[in-house]
Amino acid sequence: MKLIGEKINGTLLPVRRAIENRDSRFIRELAKLQAEAGADWLDVNAGTSPEKELDDLVWLINCIQDEVDTPLCIDSANPGPLAAAVDRVKVTPMINSISLEPQKLEGILPIVVKTECEVIALAMDENGIPRSLDERLTVIHKLVSATRSSGIPDSKVYIDPLVMAASTNTDNGKIVLDTIRIIHEEFPEIHFCGGVSNISFGLPHRTLVNQAFLSLAINAGLDCAILDPLNRDIRAAILSVELVLGMDKHCQRYSRASKKGLIGRQTDKNA
Amino acid sequence: MKLIGEKINGTLLPVRRAIENRDSRFIRELAKLQAEAGADWLDVNAGTSPEKELDDLVWLINCIQDEVDTPLCIDSANPGPLAAAVDRVKVTPMINSISLEPQKLEGILPIVVKTECEVIALAMDENGIPRSLDERLTVIHKLVSATRSSGIPDSKVYIDPLVMAASTNTDNGKIVLDTIRIIHEEFPEIHFCGGVSNISFGLPHRTLVNQAFLSLAINAGLDCAILDPLNRDIRAAILSVELVLGMDKHCQRYSRASKKGLIGRQTDKNA
Repeated sequence: MKLIGEKINGTLLPVRRAIENRDSRFIRELAKLQAEAGADWLDVNAGTSPEKELDDLVWLINCIQDEVDTPLCIDSANPGPLAAAVDRVKVTPMINSISLEPQKLEGILPIVVKTECEVIALAMDENGIPRSLDERLTVIHKLVSATRSSGIPDSKVYIDPLVMAASTNTDNGKIVLDTIRIIHEEFPEIHFCGGVSNISFGLPHRTLVNQAFLSLAINAGLDCAILDPLNRDIRAAILSVELVLGMDKHCQRYSRASKKGLIGRQTDKNA
Repeated sequence: MKLIGEKINGTLLPVRRAIENRDSRFIRELAKLQAEAGADWLDVNAGTSPEKELDDLVWLINCIQDEVDTPLCIDSANPGPLAAAVDRVKVTPMINSISLEPQKLEGILPIVVKTECEVIALAMDENGIPRSLDERLTVIHKLVSATRSSGIPDSKVYIDPLVMAASTNTDNGKIVLDTIRIIHEEFPEIHFCGGVSNISFGLPHRTLVNQAFLSLAINAGLDCAILDPLNRDIRAAILSVELVLGMDKHCQRYSRASKKGLIGRQTDKNA
């Protein structure tokens, strides 16, 4: 399971303030903590207006690269700033994201091709996120056609099936799980990457629902997630599921995390 | 998901003491708490020597039936006491258990046939618990042949795939999950019932592993479990998985449990 650290995102208030005040210490600390917690990439989203975005992205990238060597996941909807930012990174980044929306295919797909990098592909088109399983599969088939005909190998594509809240439609979880399972069988080289926490939007005790959903999604084929790598409950859910699925030889990763005090309730070793 | 409350078991020290002292208040309280927590059956295991077992079982059954109407799951390896105990219960019980061991097939299967009741069938034979997936499937096929040829409908059979510790063999979780999935596809009327907590034997933070395993087992087809219905973490795992699988219409059961304070960390509503 690969993790993309989600915390350096200008749509979050403390990060926005740090960007506005050019508080590099704050950003470097977020980078360091996520890297130490095992993030495989650090998402970088300036979350600012297009005219300021390039300046902000470049500043963020420089802050992070001064602190850690973890690859970045450059997160922008704007081709101009995105292309310029990608040129500034030391290690080949991941690009977040393309979709079937024409401006993404025309503006961002060529940057992915030129950079020869990994890319997150959102399962949506100009009409938004498809409601039904069949429509979602159709959109993903078109996305894979687009990446393949651009010469991008399947192994560099991370489909984001776009998790929606179970509270608005009880079937939303099942639709994503079925999407992952079916596409995984059809295109075994393709990866899946999702922000799982949307599933619990509007519900109490969100972590419980996120843990359950993450467990089933990993079982279905999810092999990458955008999340807070510092969240103990999510880390525990990932390690536990990998253990019971036989993906953690001799339970070593789980046991090591326990010895380091990284999983379980902090007040109760047996919880 | 059906639950069998596991707490009235004479191999547990406080229950053994209550049996020895004929402390009916203790047993009635265990019955009441488990029934209130939603147990569909209450397991009754005297855990005493065969010569005392019938007396103890009858005393336990009378205690419980004085307190609650929940059906019982009579848990004994000895045909004599088992048959006599089954005759004492007010509501048709479940019998726990048969297996391919000759003394179980000869001694207990006829009691199941006569009682026309539901039965737990352990996936083991005279050689013990099969190690590999293939051997376990073979044993289950023979078990189903035996119940079918005795006229027991599949819908009354609860296969216990016999969960073993992941700490002794990393594949033990996967073997059970695959067993459930394959048998569920082959015999859609058959139920599955397991004690999931063995999976985490020897590991720290056992609840984490139990939750993950239970989630995947429910997804594979587990529809009954023997467990402590008072355990908040396990209840939360069941409700959360049913929610994300679309089995909880409008998230009603989950939301109701939250409102009653039955799930989530007691110190933190958002955890």
